[in-house]
Amino acid sequence: MYKVYGDMLSGNCYKIKLLMQFLDISHQWIPVDILASETHTEAFKQMNPNTRIPVVELDDGNYLWESNAILNYFAEGTDFLPSTKYERAKVLQWQFFEQYSHEPYIATARYINKYLGLPQAREAEYHAKQAGGHKALAVMEQHLADNQFFLGANATIADISLYAYTHVAHEGGFDLSEYANIQRWFKDFESIPGYIKMARENA
Amino acid sequence: MYKVYGDMLSGNCYKIKLLMQFLDISHQWIPVDILASETHTEAFKQMNPNTRIPVVELDDGNYLWESNAILNYFAEGTDFLPSTKYERAKVLQWQFFEQYSHEPYIATARYINKYLGLPQAREAEYHAKQAGGHKALAVMEQHLADNQFFLGANATIADISLYAYTHVAHEGGFDLSEYANIQRWFKDFESIPGYIKMARENA
Repeated sequence: MYKVYGDMLSGNCYKIKLLMQFLDISHQWIPVDILASETHTEAFKQMNPNTRIPVVELDDGNYLWESNAILNYFAEGTDFLPSTKYERAKVLQWQFFEQYSHEPYIATARYINKYLGLPQAREAEYHAKQAGGHKALAVMEQHLADNQFFLGANATIADISLYAYTHVAHEGGFDLSEYANIQRWFKDFESIPGYIKMARENA
Repeated sequence: MYKVYGDMLSGNCYKIKLLMQFLDISHQWIPVDILASETHTEAFKQMNPNTRIPVVELDDGNYLWESNAILNYFAEGTDFLPSTKYERAKVLQWQFFEQYSHEPYIATARYINKYLGLPQAREAEYHAKQAGGHKALAVMEQHLADNQFFLGANATIADISLYAYTHVAHEGGFDLSEYANIQRWFKDFESIPGYIKMARENA
């Protein structure tokens, strides 16, 4: 059985949980506490030398890390990953957008605020994240004006990647009330059979 | 014919140039000057609302952005992208590592130093990038001890993604002399038929 090493409060880990629920994939979830530096033990570094979660252990003992790479692995051959070369590249385009232009602002602001309790030493950094986060949200808002999901009529792993941190962006100080298309997309995403909410504790 | 909108000094754009040389793909290169804000015009935003290069215009008029997504598109069906699900996911793992844990440190430090001339206002940020950059380099160094290329015996687009900014890391203040495996990998990468050096000017 697949083993998933993750933190239930982490959007990157929640992505994996969502896809496994949508696809009904049996797996064992192994909680990792990042605040207790559990990703920095020698045993963890054997799985991922980059000391990050999530990590998936496959049945043959191989490890795979980076949330969006893991999504592509499990979505292959399912409705969550289109079959044409162009559409697959578009899925990746939105996933790389998420990791470079969205997550470092929205997820990091949320981390500083929710995990760390907005310590004074990181207040300036927290406020500096707001502009980049709103820029990413504006790109999404515009795209969702003409598209039900990021690739059109069908939900894909691009939606999973972007939903994970966007739907909790308010925990990083982002007011989403002005983003009507994103709100509509939330509702459509949450209607996918198998959808589960993000956990409220890491257990 | 494919049109590539890019800056010859940008590692993200150089990735596309390298793959097109390796695969002998005809294309038209259209220089974009990021310092002159040419990615922020209305015409450019029609191609990529996220205002970044590179962007590729396909023969049917569709656009594709995010360097690593573009690499996956053109590498499909070639030796630069393995065919098994696990190996493809491993390629993506290293590409997401590059965009999240490598590029924001190494490429950004280079940008501040080489493009902007290390202005005093960004000196602290420049120095703060060094630790993260060396952490990424250490992960690469360790992996390359047992692997000729990132996926083993054959070069893939994972190598292209990581070579682009690593081989000019010294321009961001990173001394690579201690990274013997990375130096060896540079030589193997530069022996791939079709290899061209990064341009020294954006034209």
